[in-house]
Amino acid sequence: MTATILNGRELATTMRAEIDEAVVKFKEKYSVTPTIAVVRAGEDPASVSYANAIRRTAERRGMGFSVHVLPETARQEAVVELVRQLSADTSIHGIMVQEPLPKGMDEAAVKEALSPEKDVDGVHAVNAGRLAQVAPAGRPPGVLDYFVPATPAGGLEILKRQNVDISGKHAVVVGRSNIVGKPMSLLLLRQNATVTIAHSRTADLAEVCRSADILCAAVGRAKIITADMVKPGAVVIDFGVNFDDEGNMVGDVDFDAVKDVAGMITPVPGGTGPMTNVILMLNVLEAARRQIKHS
Amino acid sequence: MTATILNGRELATTMRAEIDEAVVKFKEKYSVTPTIAVVRAGEDPASVSYANAIRRTAERRGMGFSVHVLPETARQEAVVELVRQLSADTSIHGIMVQEPLPKGMDEAAVKEALSPEKDVDGVHAVNAGRLAQVAPAGRPPGVLDYFVPATPAGGLEILKRQNVDISGKHAVVVGRSNIVGKPMSLLLLRQNATVTIAHSRTADLAEVCRSADILCAAVGRAKIITADMVKPGAVVIDFGVNFDDEGNMVGDVDFDAVKDVAGMITPVPGGTGPMTNVILMLNVLEAARRQIKHS
Repeated sequence: MTATILNGRELATTMRAEIDEAVVKFKEKYSVTPTIAVVRAGEDPASVSYANAIRRTAERRGMGFSVHVLPETARQEAVVELVRQLSADTSIHGIMVQEPLPKGMDEAAVKEALSPEKDVDGVHAVNAGRLAQVAPAGRPPGVLDYFVPATPAGGLEILKRQNVDISGKHAVVVGRSNIVGKPMSLLLLRQNATVTIAHSRTADLAEVCRSADILCAAVGRAKIITADMVKPGAVVIDFGVNFDDEGNMVGDVDFDAVKDVAGMITPVPGGTGPMTNVILMLNVLEAARRQIKHS
Repeated sequence: MTATILNGRELATTMRAEIDEAVVKFKEKYSVTPTIAVVRAGEDPASVSYANAIRRTAERRGMGFSVHVLPETARQEAVVELVRQLSADTSIHGIMVQEPLPKGMDEAAVKEALSPEKDVDGVHAVNAGRLAQVAPAGRPPGVLDYFVPATPAGGLEILKRQNVDISGKHAVVVGRSNIVGKPMSLLLLRQNATVTIAHSRTADLAEVCRSADILCAAVGRAKIITADMVKPGAVVIDFGVNFDDEGNMVGDVDFDAVKDVAGMITPVPGGTGPMTNVILMLNVLEAARRQIKHS
């Protein structure tokens, strides 16, 4: 058996076209350009390159973009002050604070300085809390408006567009980061999956993974999910971004072997990765919509 | 085999004595009486009786207590306004809004009107979010100070005082409420358990439960956890409060049968129940401590 390859690049292209259309309509209706501001402290190369990718994605959508760079030596108060200023600036609808922040900085204090309404990557505790508290899909949410981190939201979108049946299925999420593993678990729970969160301390990871109908890997270690850890026919979502000895980007899943066992699988690159920026743009558009509604 | 009975009533007595001592010291040091305010709308009998229980527990600890009652017909704005007033009142350190609120009231808006610093039952999204985002035990938390709902915190305390080994164990939590199931899952995850959240849509609940080293039931249905659903030697924590046809209080676990299979088990009544108010008082004391520190 060879798995259906879940082509995130193709889906991202489709969704970019949907967003382009929505942005045009939005600007016509409100005469407002949905705008994202990126905050960076220091010149971490991955962070610089990610900010550039966000710029391209935003500008090609006809959305506004600005980047605000502080020196690596910036004090926490300066970052917090910048985030507060951007939060108060009505011409900016979404804010993303790039990690890593300079060493010794209290990330929690910086994140919570964000206006939750502009926290388009869902890192503020209020947004994490509303995701944790939201009622199962189909019921009234029972929480105020919130944002979900873009990467797991993109993974869920792949499952939904593929019409993967989630309700009542056993989903295993390997990894418990705040930006992927934990929010992905909560998103799958909301879709009525039975959810297991596994991690570095999990006693028999292979056995736990083999019980998954939907297996999500968000560990950050190349190819740690091997074919013997996957139930035949399972849906495998790989959030890993790692580089092998030759410098090739590889996921957390041993794609070449697992594709012969799984029912569906996202490749790396070209799976969950291309979805992240697309979801981020959707969130900026939604943030602008909410801010106009409440202004 | 007969399970060790985890006597929550006894542990609650021990902890009340610890709190009494801490309250005396606190009042001596700061000349401040840690005080909780309870908000109620309407005369739901369970809610009235719970408020009275909190009053007794607080007053016997030498802590302050006040109850603020609005009529069943109160508008949401009135409840929000009351919660805001209490949040601004420096003589009050903890606030608990009793459920159920009158029909049609937006509970999310009421909860989020609470000052997170006084939200001693951990219902505000900010507190839920910080619990969702906190790093595993033993690492720097990575989040600002927060409060955990008292009932699951009490369940965890029972496990800890019994020296139950949680790290690397498989914990299954049945039920996904915001006040018990979800926070209990996050607490166990923080202690490095591999955590599965099961619920009404779980396909084979019995099989999922049988895989648990630590099984927590928070469903609200009498005796739905039967002996065949429990792995021999498992630790069973029962958060259920139900009443049988004769009016006896029974848990979610079929105690009489499960006690012959489990290694440890909390009875109902006398297990997790008595711990809730004790943890609430601990949280009020901690809230007062934080508020003095930051004033």
